[in-house]
Amino acid sequence: MTHHGARHGSSGGGRDLIGLQAMDVETMRRLLRSSWAMANDWRGARGKPPQPDLAGRTIANLFFENSTRTRVSFTIAAQRLGANVVDLSSAGSSVAKGETLVDTVRTIEAMGVDALVVRHASSGAAALAASTADIPVLNAGDGSHEHPTQGLLDSLTVAEAHARTDAFDLSGLRLAIVGDVAHSRVARSDIAAWTALGASVVCVGPPTLAPRTLEALGVEVRHDLDAVLPEVDGLQALRVQFERAASLSSARDYAAAFQINPARLARMKKSAVVMHPGPMNRGLEIAGDAAEAVDGPRGVVLRQVENGVYMRMAALRWCLGQD
Amino acid sequence: MTHHGARHGSSGGGRDLIGLQAMDVETMRRLLRSSWAMANDWRGARGKPPQPDLAGRTIANLFFENSTRTRVSFTIAAQRLGANVVDLSSAGSSVAKGETLVDTVRTIEAMGVDALVVRHASSGAAALAASTADIPVLNAGDGSHEHPTQGLLDSLTVAEAHARTDAFDLSGLRLAIVGDVAHSRVARSDIAAWTALGASVVCVGPPTLAPRTLEALGVEVRHDLDAVLPEVDGLQALRVQFERAASLSSARDYAAAFQINPARLARMKKSAVVMHPGPMNRGLEIAGDAAEAVDGPRGVVLRQVENGVYMRMAALRWCLGQD
Amino acid sequence: MTHHGARHGSSGGGRDLIGLQAMDVETMRRLLRSSWAMANDWRGARGKPPQPDLAGRTIANLFFENSTRTRVSFTIAAQRLGANVVDLSSAGSSVAKGETLVDTVRTIEAMGVDALVVRHASSGAAALAASTADIPVLNAGDGSHEHPTQGLLDSLTVAEAHARTDAFDLSGLRLAIVGDVAHSRVARSDIAAWTALGASVVCVGPPTLAPRTLEALGVEVRHDLDAVLPEVDGLQALRVQFERAASLSSARDYAAAFQINPARLARMKKSAVVMHPGPMNRGLEIAGDAAEAVDGPRGVVLRQVENGVYMRMAALRWCLGQD
Repeated sequence: MTHHGARHGSSGGGRDLIGLQAMDVETMRRLLRSSWAMANDWRGARGKPPQPDLAGRTIANLFFENSTRTRVSFTIAAQRLGANVVDLSSAGSSVAKGETLVDTVRTIEAMGVDALVVRHASSGAAALAASTADIPVLNAGDGSHEHPTQGLLDSLTVAEAHARTDAFDLSGLRLAIVGDVAHSRVARSDIAAWTALGASVVCVGPPTLAPRTLEALGVEVRHDLDAVLPEVDGLQALRVQFERAASLSSARDYAAAFQINPARLARMKKSAVVMHPGPMNRGLEIAGDAAEAVDGPRGVVLRQVENGVYMRMAALRWCLGQD
Repeated sequence: MTHHGARHGSSGGGRDLIGLQAMDVETMRRLLRSSWAMANDWRGARGKPPQPDLAGRTIANLFFENSTRTRVSFTIAAQRLGANVVDLSSAGSSVAKGETLVDTVRTIEAMGVDALVVRHASSGAAALAASTADIPVLNAGDGSHEHPTQGLLDSLTVAEAHARTDAFDLSGLRLAIVGDVAHSRVARSDIAAWTALGASVVCVGPPTLAPRTLEALGVEVRHDLDAVLPEVDGLQALRVQFERAASLSSARDYAAAFQINPARLARMKKSAVVMHPGPMNRGLEIAGDAAEAVDGPRGVVLRQVENGVYMRMAALRWCLGQD
Repeated sequence: MTHHGARHGSSGGGRDLIGLQAMDVETMRRLLRSSWAMANDWRGARGKPPQPDLAGRTIANLFFENSTRTRVSFTIAAQRLGANVVDLSSAGSSVAKGETLVDTVRTIEAMGVDALVVRHASSGAAALAASTADIPVLNAGDGSHEHPTQGLLDSLTVAEAHARTDAFDLSGLRLAIVGDVAHSRVARSDIAAWTALGASVVCVGPPTLAPRTLEALGVEVRHDLDAVLPEVDGLQALRVQFERAASLSSARDYAAAFQINPARLARMKKSAVVMHPGPMNRGLEIAGDAAEAVDGPRGVVLRQVENGVYMRMAALRWCLGQD
């Protein structure tokens, strides 16, 4: 959102959520505390009436890239806060008719929408939308740049698994990110959050996907997953992007070196958790028989999904000045 | 839904609705009574506020096969009960990214959805989803297996037309199903419901589409529609699937022998009703000039559509333990 | 909607909104007054709870042509009035399965929907739907026939810009429509509204797109935009349809003669406003650097978008007998 004073009217206090690399750690902790409060209110609740925080508000999902799970997660979060949701997908949208992103954003805003959730294949698209709109913009993933609610929900998940929900301080924890770190917006947001919250982060993958240049982000880079496994308290297995798989010597080679499988799970600390941002390619980055990664005591993949809704509730409230 | 005790929390009393072949007749009658009560409350009502039965609940439509009418029917039913609805279609869903059905179902459930309406091209998909999910699963059509809410809404329609809404006993009525019975999930669910409720059922079609093996389902099989017409109290004209039309000697031959047209309508009892699950191929299984089939005194095609909403209200309430 | 008496039940007072050519000027002014009241209630309002006018009603968007902005505009309008909205798009709809428009409309109506918003590529489709349905039908654009809510929202925008919101009398104003007038439903609806409300209308374009035959609609036809510019109080720049661009000698020639650019804007009266129904092809009918057309003091393109929501609120209330 831009700041035009008069145009804001009574909506003051709104904020964009574009990325975690530019967010101070106190704001991260504020969002984590708020999402944890949502978790305690909503977990297991059936038939709980919406909180009225965003009653009368309209949230627009503007997704230029398909992502059913992220769109639905934001939708359920908004509905639980009493908001209405409208969906605009790229197929058939004005963008397909040649309209610019800036014109699309301003048009949606002119319809009286209160916040915009944007997903786009280009890095920087969310920031461009935010620089155009007077209303808050939430980045739901832009190219290989950031996916901030994912980074925050992953932090909530780690904090919960390791009983750090009192202060959301991850000091002393060592967390691995495995796979195509170089091109991953999830990795970028995880790294920003985890390092800010005090964890030590190690990126693991073949040199093409986990290059030494990542060290500039304050992380360690390693290429031998089996050596790293016993050290870590948590591991995020990134999704292999099939469209980039051609650049791997082969999917088979990748799986041999980096797939999460029962043998590798057995090398991890008992308390270590396995995460995946989803959707999982079973048989590629996760073995088909690695059920433990999802269902066993160390599997928190579904907890990530659940926490995603709480975090998006917190994010919507914060962006709209209602937290 | 699976039964994991603790994971159910306060949602207890939930049930899946997968098929009618495995449903006892008392449950069918319970759903019929409940849908008839909905009909009496909602028919002709304009601006009636939602019943609060499912307030605060979220229903997810997970449609791997497109079906606007079934999806909208479930959506309106859910909204009338005060629930929120989220749509997940196959185009652009995680499934298109290689995720398994089981992972998709568990992901949606983890988002806090309260019930799942599933449509899938594979027979058994709804049962697989139900065996995975802790929340109720409603089958909205799976391959050539079952379409249970259709079988029930057709039963409601027959019962209404023949004044059997007191006990929902169809004894003494003879009902025909015409067309590609062998591949039809609608036929399978109709047969299960109608035979259980006491009707005598006759399947009519060419031997390839209405083979003798159907007799194992407790129905009669005939190949001469004109001979059957004077005997029946109701007739369901199945939709000809264009994609299977190649297996017919020709659409023209099919229409000559089995199309519902004015001449054939004239051979039926005055009290007999004509049904069609929609969408109709006018000029194929229904003649372009057979307006009476839809609009005349014996046409109940639109009544089926209307009853579909009442039946889905009843089904959602029952599956969520709110009836 | 057709008039079947008994079938209407308590919904009486409903009306279709198919086109402005057949609408009397008093009805236009009634809708303009009502939309202006909506504007005064809702402009800048954040978190305003829905008006209960359409509580308990369901509005169906039946869009055979994609139009995200029009669909979302109607959706937000309906939600502000407390209604539920269901979307039916052509992709995957029953229509794709060969169902007739008449059968589709009757099916949706049978589901208990209260009003139908129809968009279709064929002129006359909305009228056909209305002749079939018992519920109100709102035309959201049919072929090259009409787009009545667009004509009305453009009238509201002109009236607002020129302080004519007391009586919605546009006498003495001269308004231009520039571009492919011959094939434009927007132009047809604008012409009907503006001439009825007392404005003088001039259509400008090359002879193929702005033929003399348009004079039968009560407008002037001109081919030299630069000569017309100094005379007008408002100008609607129509969208160039790329699919028809082949019939132009070339897009470059078109832009040279008819593109709205800074030099042309400088020729206009200070009080004149520039409109566009959107989405804009920047660089074709609007110059990439013609920011003033949208953002400057004479740019009302986003005001059109905003007014579109108010006008659709007014139209839904009127069609459903709630104004």
